[in-house]
Amino acid sequence: MFESAEIGRSVDKATFKAEEASLREALLEVQYELKEKANFPVLILINGVEGAGKGETVKLLNEWMDPRLIQVNTFDAPTEEELARPPAWRYWRALPPKGQMGVFFGNWYSQMLRDRVHGNGKEAALDQAIDDAERLERMLCDEGTLIFKFWFHLSRKEMKKRFNALKDDPQRSWLLTPLDVQQSKSYGKYVRHAEHVLRHSSRDYAPWYVIDGFDHYYRSLAVGRILLEGLQAALERTGQEQNQSTPHTALVSSQDNRGLLDRLDLSQALEKHEYKKQLASEQARLSSLMRDKRMQRHTLIAAFEGNDAAGKGGAIRRVTGALDPRQYHIVPVAAPTEEERAQPYLWRFWRNIPARGKFTIFDRTWYGRVLVERVEGFCSEVEWLRAYNEINDFEEHLSNAGVILVKFWLAIDQDTQLQRFQARENIPFKRFKITEEDWRNREKWDDYANAVSDMVDRTSSEIAPWTLVEANDKRFARVKVLRTINDAIEAAFDKE
Amino acid sequence: MFESAEIGRSVDKATFKAEEASLREALLEVQYELKEKANFPVLILINGVEGAGKGETVKLLNEWMDPRLIQVNTFDAPTEEELARPPAWRYWRALPPKGQMGVFFGNWYSQMLRDRVHGNGKEAALDQAIDDAERLERMLCDEGTLIFKFWFHLSRKEMKKRFNALKDDPQRSWLLTPLDVQQSKSYGKYVRHAEHVLRHSSRDYAPWYVIDGFDHYYRSLAVGRILLEGLQAALERTGQEQNQSTPHTALVSSQDNRGLLDRLDLSQALEKHEYKKQLASEQARLSSLMRDKRMQRHTLIAAFEGNDAAGKGGAIRRVTGALDPRQYHIVPVAAPTEEERAQPYLWRFWRNIPARGKFTIFDRTWYGRVLVERVEGFCSEVEWLRAYNEINDFEEHLSNAGVILVKFWLAIDQDTQLQRFQARENIPFKRFKITEEDWRNREKWDDYANAVSDMVDRTSSEIAPWTLVEANDKRFARVKVLRTINDAIEAAFDKE
Repeated sequence: MFESAEIGRSVDKATFKAEEASLREALLEVQYELKEKANFPVLILINGVEGAGKGETVKLLNEWMDPRLIQVNTFDAPTEEELARPPAWRYWRALPPKGQMGVFFGNWYSQMLRDRVHGNGKEAALDQAIDDAERLERMLCDEGTLIFKFWFHLSRKEMKKRFNALKDDPQRSWLLTPLDVQQSKSYGKYVRHAEHVLRHSSRDYAPWYVIDGFDHYYRSLAVGRILLEGLQAALERTGQEQNQSTPHTALVSSQDNRGLLDRLDLSQALEKHEYKKQLASEQARLSSLMRDKRMQRHTLIAAFEGNDAAGKGGAIRRVTGALDPRQYHIVPVAAPTEEERAQPYLWRFWRNIPARGKFTIFDRTWYGRVLVERVEGFCSEVEWLRAYNEINDFEEHLSNAGVILVKFWLAIDQDTQLQRFQARENIPFKRFKITEEDWRNREKWDDYANAVSDMVDRTSSEIAPWTLVEANDKRFARVKVLRTINDAIEAAFDKE
Repeated sequence: MFESAEIGRSVDKATFKAEEASLREALLEVQYELKEKANFPVLILINGVEGAGKGETVKLLNEWMDPRLIQVNTFDAPTEEELARPPAWRYWRALPPKGQMGVFFGNWYSQMLRDRVHGNGKEAALDQAIDDAERLERMLCDEGTLIFKFWFHLSRKEMKKRFNALKDDPQRSWLLTPLDVQQSKSYGKYVRHAEHVLRHSSRDYAPWYVIDGFDHYYRSLAVGRILLEGLQAALERTGQEQNQSTPHTALVSSQDNRGLLDRLDLSQALEKHEYKKQLASEQARLSSLMRDKRMQRHTLIAAFEGNDAAGKGGAIRRVTGALDPRQYHIVPVAAPTEEERAQPYLWRFWRNIPARGKFTIFDRTWYGRVLVERVEGFCSEVEWLRAYNEINDFEEHLSNAGVILVKFWLAIDQDTQLQRFQARENIPFKRFKITEEDWRNREKWDDYANAVSDMVDRTSSEIAPWTLVEANDKRFARVKVLRTINDAIEAAFDKE
């Protein structure tokens, strides 16, 4: 791959100067058009061998364009807050919003190469990391992000020469990072693995551009032209169609699973005395598990979905009733804010992922896309169809990072819902719980039932299974919720 | 103060149960009204002696009300990201948005008492901390926040008794924090200093409520009633008038300082050759200073304001031109986002305070309130009048934390602005820089000049002086900006 790139390409100063002015002007134009339209973000990944001009190119882009609309991020040693969360969290929090450009100087590719070359990463781990990167990038592209991946290359001989020159130049030695120093000592190994990575991670929707770093002028013009053409094409596409990576297969609703919901025995109930006993015992168990030292190595996330009036709020209060308010955090999921709308769908859930040792309860969740958004038409069919995979990926990230994820669907039947709606309308301090919207949603009972079946069918994985909770009887539901959380924590402790 | 509180007050269970139901209902009502109106946030500070029911009360409030609208924050050992910024940063990032309630369980009061009782804090430091707290709370109240400060008290004898009981009860030992354990050993000292703090930090707009923690029922009803009454009164006030702490004195524009701007010698200029030489030399100096190890103990913030077309963007590019894009971050200040509008004015600047060792450039700044917002009437007179003090406080926080703050006003005269506006309209890739708004602003030249004079007069302090930059000649301005930054860094290094 690197051999096929024409090594040693160069451009003379006069040619550079002549093209630079117009290139610069054109880049500024597209940058402002991007800002004005603000319907997609641009992500520029910078990778390559040491001394090949990565830093200088980013610097030049900041000079050519308006640096106020470019955010440069580096990902050195993770901070304490980052270490306490899944590894991808640091990338999510740095994603540029729509209309802006983000430069990731060092990213998942430098991480996977560092692990493979200097760490303990094995070949299989590298392939897994490539796979993860593909899924992340595909998701970003599906959400509209325009991705450029640049690999700056240099021959071993040229690299050594530059490294030594830089080292001795106090004005420019900032261009060297500790990683660079390591790289210079393991060029062969590094380049071999990099070739493997690039070969397996270049996609139509996020191709690699290998830039020969030998000549400053050539390199700068090449990067500038690629960005300009890519941006112009993307801006032209905007409005015409969404930026789709690949077609998705249509979803056929599973009748079997619809049966699964229908087969729930909603008559299950607990009588009051038994309920009080079991509730107290499960609350004590949760309280004790949360104070267990092993909890410090995990994160607990409980995700609540369910029919309207199924008793999510009440169940959540029985869970938190066992705990110190300092231990948990409730995230009520409502309409996304302006800042959230400028980001990929899952961003607002990623931003709320708690640190290790903490417990977060999502009251309604990332499943909104395949439930209410699907049924009410708040997103396109393509969007909710691909959400299943995105959600599975998201939950895999959580699981890999030691997150104990418990997902509940609280199910009631139509008669029970009607009774509860009517009761809510009649009790003053419950009136806030019932709105016109609830009545409207109720009319779409079957559509929601189908959406739930598909959701359970496609997202109930071994690592993150759904728990269907028979909720016609609130007492039964509350105890089942608590017991399920406790069992999940114990199972995670046992697996250690 | 604590002696005067009636110690040992209690309520029997039947009375409690009878009132609890209606109190709970009423609290839910106001909580939902608060959420619906969403025009102010509620901040509840929880302090007091160990064992007096702080944790249990917060837990009860979460049970009584909708816990999804209450965020409980604890402030234990600061994280790495928090340690790298001014101490108040951690409080700012946790402030509840309008329409919600935030519980600060542990806060600036626990911090100052901890420092005084167990740390190295002296009496003067405590008084300084009380002062800082007052200014912070006054600002929050001015911005509409409703603050409740609860002190949970207990006699020494009762405290000891409870402490020992709790220690031995595995179900409830979570109520004890390491701080509590310390407190139990230094009750007398702790209470003496607490009394001093409470006496000097109770204000009309943010009074202390001393709650006798002896009886669970009494305590719970007392807190519930105080919250209910306070919230009801605040919701009633809403819309009628703004929540003003104290009247502010009117501002009389200073004619002297207007002279200060008029006396600037805008004819100062650099010829091209000299400019190139000086620019290169100052850029090299900045590049070297930023790489100095001493920079790791500081933070650099450069704040740019100036007339339209005064050349802020160009000056910023000359500053960043000296640097690795990984070293700096530019924050272009535009209209606040939805999340920012739900917070006090300065919140969006606090959230962008960089960590130690980093450099952030604000392109337009927190001075927007006393410049464009004042002149265009985007905020009330009361708001911009009190902004001067708020800004001075903010900058003092920065300065105390080792932030090197450099503030520029780039000044040009009206003729120069006209020429530049016309030139921008004629150069294609500069056309984005000129809008209708610029022409409109130009018509208010004198209003802006007055606002600038007042700003410089009121916010040019020893710790954060304004640098007026003669910017008719872009070259002169750019070199002066760079040199000022460099001098400021060196001065900070020298002071170490």
